[in-house]
Amino acid sequence: MDVGMDKLVSLCKRRGIIFPSSEIYGGINGFWDYGPLGVELKRNIKEAWWRDNVQMRDDMVGLDCSIIMNPRVWEASGHVGGFSDPMVDCRVTKERYRADQLYVFAYLFPAVNQKGEPTEAWLAGLGSSPEEAGEGPEKKAAKLAKRFGKPADPPTVIPFMQVAEADRAKVIGPSTDEAGTLTEPRSFNLMFKTFVGALESDSNVAYLRPETAQGIFANFKNVVDTGRVKLPFGIAQVGKSFRNEINPRNFTFRSREFEQMEIEFFCRPDEAKEWYAYWRKARFQWYVDLGLRSDRLRLRDHDAEELAFYSTATADIEYSFPFGVSELEGIAHRGDYDLTQHQKFSGKDLSYFDEERKERFLPHVIEPSAGADRATLAFLCEAYTEDQVGGEARTVLKFHPRIAPVKAAVFPLVKRDGMPEKARAIHDDLRRQFAVFYDEKGAIGRRYRRQDEAGTPYCITVDSQSLADDTVTLRDRDSCRQWRVPSAGITSAIRDLLDGKAIPAGDAATAPAGEADGQQAG
Amino acid sequence: MDVGMDKLVSLCKRRGIIFPSSEIYGGINGFWDYGPLGVELKRNIKEAWWRDNVQMRDDMVGLDCSIIMNPRVWEASGHVGGFSDPMVDCRVTKERYRADQLYVFAYLFPAVNQKGEPTEAWLAGLGSSPEEAGEGPEKKAAKLAKRFGKPADPPTVIPFMQVAEADRAKVIGPSTDEAGTLTEPRSFNLMFKTFVGALESDSNVAYLRPETAQGIFANFKNVVDTGRVKLPFGIAQVGKSFRNEINPRNFTFRSREFEQMEIEFFCRPDEAKEWYAYWRKARFQWYVDLGLRSDRLRLRDHDAEELAFYSTATADIEYSFPFGVSELEGIAHRGDYDLTQHQKFSGKDLSYFDEERKERFLPHVIEPSAGADRATLAFLCEAYTEDQVGGEARTVLKFHPRIAPVKAAVFPLVKRDGMPEKARAIHDDLRRQFAVFYDEKGAIGRRYRRQDEAGTPYCITVDSQSLADDTVTLRDRDSCRQWRVPSAGITSAIRDLLDGKAIPAGDAATAPAGEADGQQAG
Repeated sequence: MDVGMDKLVSLCKRRGIIFPSSEIYGGINGFWDYGPLGVELKRNIKEAWWRDNVQMRDDMVGLDCSIIMNPRVWEASGHVGGFSDPMVDCRVTKERYRADQLYVFAYLFPAVNQKGEPTEAWLAGLGSSPEEAGEGPEKKAAKLAKRFGKPADPPTVIPFMQVAEADRAKVIGPSTDEAGTLTEPRSFNLMFKTFVGALESDSNVAYLRPETAQGIFANFKNVVDTGRVKLPFGIAQVGKSFRNEINPRNFTFRSREFEQMEIEFFCRPDEAKEWYAYWRKARFQWYVDLGLRSDRLRLRDHDAEELAFYSTATADIEYSFPFGVSELEGIAHRGDYDLTQHQKFSGKDLSYFDEERKERFLPHVIEPSAGADRATLAFLCEAYTEDQVGGEARTVLKFHPRIAPVKAAVFPLVKRDGMPEKARAIHDDLRRQFAVFYDEKGAIGRRYRRQDEAGTPYCITVDSQSLADDTVTLRDRDSCRQWRVPSAGITSAIRDLLDGKAIPAGDAATAPAGEADGQQAG
Repeated sequence: MDVGMDKLVSLCKRRGIIFPSSEIYGGINGFWDYGPLGVELKRNIKEAWWRDNVQMRDDMVGLDCSIIMNPRVWEASGHVGGFSDPMVDCRVTKERYRADQLYVFAYLFPAVNQKGEPTEAWLAGLGSSPEEAGEGPEKKAAKLAKRFGKPADPPTVIPFMQVAEADRAKVIGPSTDEAGTLTEPRSFNLMFKTFVGALESDSNVAYLRPETAQGIFANFKNVVDTGRVKLPFGIAQVGKSFRNEINPRNFTFRSREFEQMEIEFFCRPDEAKEWYAYWRKARFQWYVDLGLRSDRLRLRDHDAEELAFYSTATADIEYSFPFGVSELEGIAHRGDYDLTQHQKFSGKDLSYFDEERKERFLPHVIEPSAGADRATLAFLCEAYTEDQVGGEARTVLKFHPRIAPVKAAVFPLVKRDGMPEKARAIHDDLRRQFAVFYDEKGAIGRRYRRQDEAGTPYCITVDSQSLADDTVTLRDRDSCRQWRVPSAGITSAIRDLLDGKAIPAGDAATAPAGEADGQQAG
């Protein structure tokens, strides 16, 4: 179902999935912390990525580079020179905007001035599209309409970057009612800068990496020399990156500190097109396999004008988030651009000798670059469901079992008659293989709801029948169906379910006994 | 066995375990990258820590905080004010030293000057102990002895910090022959500084966290409010931290970017002593269980003068590295110092209500703080072994199977008669459960050696007998013993071995057929 961001953010806070960083100090814009449930969810996503892309493949090796590297890396990559956004300040309110996210809405009101000209108002709004940017200007225009009359035409929309210099003085910024307070756009490098060593001098400047990719290129020679790899092969890395975004927004989607899962896949130049097609498809399928419904996912090929000059093809895997369709992962055919740059800047020979063809060349590169936080957010949005069970509303996170933070919860129906002991024993046994949770507090129905909200796919309940016939109740999160399983077989039953085996058919009620809240634990 | 650091560093480079960061650009002092084998080793260590300390416990939850936090966090923690080292510069060579690591060796030579006084030379050396610092001065003194005669007495050793101000002019720095070139010690904050947002102004300063611990304290209230935790409980976190060390050294042991595995364990004040004793023991045992021989490990309680003013007890788990006995992990009884500080600086009530006792108070904290890179280095040092097999020298990394990057390698004896196909099938089957490696290149003996060097505990070889009776050879890394196992049972055989089951007794030779290098693959 479609979830509003407010509801999701609030669930994330309430259930310990994601908190604003340093919240007791008023937070810090663009930084987020993962709480007890969130850290397990994100770990599972990263683990699934590593397992599927590194450990299950013969043609991939892993790497883990430092976040701070020799600054020459970023000269070679072009980030020192070109990794910047144009920004605009408001002289009055001191707010700062990305110039490419400012749109000017030029309204013409019927009231005329002394020269007999209609009253103009050039109202700037902030957003990633004119639609998103229009809200603020619309409200301001509605106020102005009370004084100057209702405009006959809708406003002309002009991206701020395209407003003629002479006209800039007319523009009223998003956070003021005064015209001409916005500065000229100027470029702002998005890399966080620091100093390594004791001196804060130019010679000691270093950067927090804005992407993990360049660490892979800088290590290409080391991996070729030591790893017994041969083309085609990839190098994969998971790790934090940092971008000093001017306007962090949309929860964890655009934050200043984030985690990437990147692959640089090296191949022969004449086979690169084929590998690009392969990765474009494989990466899309990965999200589908982990539960993103394919009708919310799309693969969008970049137009010619969107492509970086060195790239012959790039595609974005996009997801329909509540705040709009946005990029989850990019797959780029980067040619030999990066290795060429690093060869030039380092003066080291980065060419590869192809034993089979007896040729020496710079391999071409396909780069599937995913965001771990974005993937986590997409899985959260997709999983979020509100439905009715036995006439009661519930919120449930329908995670794919593979990424669910907890795989199974174990409950004694009541806190007496040896049920807790038996449930404990089952829990302790299961824990050797799965992430499990034990809960004996409160009504059984409420305990089910808590696990539904945490996205736990299976619940196991020890009840009075368990004491008689040594079976337990297994409950499925999504269907709420319950069925009985011998205690001794519970590990393999959970294993089978996690492996995708169907829930046994039968006539279990959809809102079975115990789902209602009435039954209190001892 | 004792390994020299040079040998270990060279093996790490050669086998893709650890590389200097940005090596093609001449590196960057104090930063390291983990290569294909190293990344799996370190992942396994972190995974073992997380599993043992978080997932297998009822009283622990995880957390993953941002590296950049609100700078007030570091005011509260005391890092802005006090996290600094005294440093000394050499005015001539521009080198910089930690003042507390400079020792002055005052020599008296028999030759007299015009006043009839013996010739003095106050030679400063760098090291974490006088023994380590003495090497440089000793060499310089030997030279001087040629001119001024051999000193009758050994030199007087004075820590640089204790040299009287009037005497500082006499001191000859480690990298010069001139006296009086060292500056007064001044304090240098070890936190890396950056700016969040576009302005490089004081109001935008932020720090890269120098420890993960404070993120846990800053989230204490959030976890208590959402996690359904109750005392005693711990919060665990694994993540990168940064310290702008003046003299990074000893390979990855003291680097500027490193990964921590920290627990803050919250408990009732009157139970804190007991929990301190518990964690002191439990954390020591963890290293022993993962293969650090206990005679190289020691648990050292801090003296009264070593303790932070708020700590009533602290112990270091130390390991005998090739460069000296050094700290692997610290376990500190921190009282309620941190929560008190954050309560004061944030103005938020961080007290905990104890339902059972109907009391409200600030919990006390036991902090087991481990270094993932230091643990990795210790496991590498411990595992490194040179021995003889069948009269040939080999290098083997005797990792505990749980942390070994690859659990089993699968080989066809020769590249014909269907052996590669059969070996491939076994490899593909095993891969669903373990990290495995397939190799068909080169002599079988050489393939065993490569896996020995990578620390792979088991090798599986498909030979001609395999084609007849469907068994394979299993080889144990440490003993080099080989025995036959039915192909169908190989997964459970590996599982049993990884779980610690003994190798079957029998009369297998210690240097069995195939260990020698003679037998060439197809």
